[in-house]
Order: sequence, then structure tokens, then C-alpha cells
Amino acid sequence: MAERTVPQGSRAELITDTALDVLAERGMRGLTHRAVDEAAGLPQGSTSNLFRTRQTLLKAVVTRLMHREASILAIEEMPGPHDGTAALADALALAVHRSLSEHPGLVIARYELALEATRRPELRTAYDTAGRSFREPLHALMAAAGSAHPEWHTRSLIAWCEGLLFTCAAGADHVAPPDHETVRRGLTELLHGMLGRS
Amino acid sequence: MAERTVPQGSRAELITDTALDVLAERGMRGLTHRAVDEAAGLPQGSTSNLFRTRQTLLKAVVTRLMHREASILAIEEMPGPHDGTAALADALALAVHRSLSEHPGLVIARYELALEATRRPELRTAYDTAGRSFREPLHALMAAAGSAHPEWHTRSLIAWCEGLLFTCAAGADHVAPPDHETVRRGLTELLHGMLGRS
Repeated sequence: MAERTVPQGSRAELITDTALDVLAERGMRGLTHRAVDEAAGLPQGSTSNLFRTRQTLLKAVVTRLMHREASILAIEEMPGPHDGTAALADALALAVHRSLSEHPGLVIARYELALEATRRPELRTAYDTAGRSFREPLHALMAAAGSAHPEWHTRSLIAWCEGLLFTCAAGADHVAPPDHETVRRGLTELLHGMLGRS
Repeated sequence: MAERTVPQGSRAELITDTALDVLAERGMRGLTHRAVDEAAGLPQGSTSNLFRTRQTLLKAVVTRLMHREASILAIEEMPGPHDGTAALADALALAVHRSLSEHPGLVIARYELALEATRRPELRTAYDTAGRSFREPLHALMAAAGSAHPEWHTRSLIAWCEGLLFTCAAGADHVAPPDHETVRRGLTELLHGMLGRS
């Protein structure tokens, strides 16, 4: 509950936020309508009343996750295409560091949902739509920065961020997340390598 | 079954390989002793006979996965500390490309197990031991290549590889895996950025 960003949300928000907590703590196998009712302190049947099937619940959970991630990643405040790569490294580092230090449960829940989306096309659509809203500004910025392969460089940047999130949250020897400055330096190195600067 | 590397293995190998298939196809929730029996074409109770608890089964599955990944990633053939970064980029690109093009199910199964390991310390130990055998040669090579921060640069390299695997296998808009040359170029850019070469 600690990392809730909408403390006074509607019942749907309470249920989907609780489902994200349950997902992070117990995995896809531990996520049931009943477990959500209990964890949310709601009468049995509350989750089923709003989200009758597992599919409906999962779709609402992905939508809620994407809404919360957009605010954690501050997508609205991402630099514009002509703000340059230093601003980009700064903004991405802040987003990655904030995710890891303040919302590690959401990172785990997102990976659970991404894996489930490989098996459920309806989740795939919701997941991918959110992914695009994050990728498009990066692509515009890489193109404006003179990248010879903006499409691939955008994938490469996102891969690095995803991999750092994953290895810190769930990978081998997951240790304390690197500080903001270390993440910023890593992104700057990658950007310099891509753009042929030393 | 197509991506099995040990076609004539023991019953334990048949069961753990089948469990990896089940995990990739149906997730942690679909992995039951019974589902493994059925998918392996074995009499009901076979999996329980060998691996009585879920915990024992999962631990055997992680161990089997790490064994198969070591051969896919060709850990034994990783360049030595003084082979240079071009050899490293080549070897890592081959490993990443081989994983994605030939063994995408194993990639998904590994992420399922990594997430489960955040909740089961016994899996964590098995998973992390295997991670170290991959990380240590990279660390030695980065130090020999003159990295100012070999520890962090090793993490950064692994993060990039993990993130590319993840985004291709399960991320937003997962598309065809990039070819070997594209992966090699991405790794070379990252290495050049780290080592201050343009």
C-alpha cells in the first residue's frame, strides 16, 4: 500500500492497485479474485462484482499499471526532440532510478504481466499501446540527435533500461539499485557509443 | 520439444525439460506436477515420484535451465580476459541471437523462474550461482580492456543483453529478433561508449 499514488481512488482503483501488490508479492499463481478481496480488506465477492472474469481483471490491472507507470516515468515531461541527449540521459536515469528505488513492486508486477501477455492477446494490445507512448518520443529525439539508426537505437536504449530494471529487481545477485548518477553515466556511455562520440 | 538439446536424457531430464516447456507456454500458474506428466506423456504421478514438492520440482527446473543455458550461451567458449572487446561483442551477440532465434521458450521460462526466485530464497541461490559463472569472465575481460569501472560496466553489459532478450521475447511490440550483426553492432557501441572510444 505504501507505494500507492492514488490514495483516495475509486473502488476499481483500490482493487487494481491491490491486485498489483498481490501480483508482486505472490506472482500470477497467487493472484485470485479472493486474494485481492482479502488483501484489500473488502467483502468477499467485491473483486468479482467489478471484474467478473480473470481476463477482465487482468486487463484492468494492465491499464492501471500503465497509468501509474506513466506518472512514475513522467512521460509527459520527457525532453522534446531538440533538447539533446544529455537531457534524455537525465530524464531516463531519473525514471529508471525512481522505479527501482520507490516502486520495485510495480517493476515485478509489470514483468509478470508482460510474460502473461505472451499468452493473452488482449493483454498484449493494452501493454503494447502503453509501450508505444514511451517509445515514440525517444525515437524522435534519437533521430533529431543525428542517429544513423534511430529505430534500432531506440530499441537499444529501451533494452538497456529494461535490463537494468530487470537485473536489479529480479536478476542474479540483485543488489541495491545503482544511484541516479551511475544510471545517468551508463546511459550517457550508451548514447555516446551510438552517436560516435567519445 | 523441438528445442530440446538432450533428446535421450534420463527421466529427470525429460521431466525438467517438459516443465520448462510448460512454464513457457502456460506460465507459473499452469505449471503443476500433473500438467508435466501429461505434456511429457508419462503416467500420472511420475513427476511427483521424482520431485515430491513444488519446491523440489522448481529447484530441479532452475538447475536444468542453467545447464541448458550454459551450453546455449557457450560459456565455456567465452573469450579470455585478453581477447579484447571485439571478441567479446562477437561472443555475446552470438549468445543473445542464438537464445532469441532458437530457444525463445527458454528465455520466457527463465524470466518466470527469476520472478519466482524473488519469493523463494532456495531458487534464488541456484539462479544466482549460475549468474555468477556468466558474469565473472565478463568482469575479467572488462578490467583487462581498461574499463575504469569494471564492476558497473559488467552490470551494464549484462543489463543490455537481458533487456534485449526481454523486450524481444515479451516486451511491447515484440518483433522479430534483430540479426546477429545488429546485436553485435549494439554491443560494440555500448563497449565503445564505456571505454571512451568513438
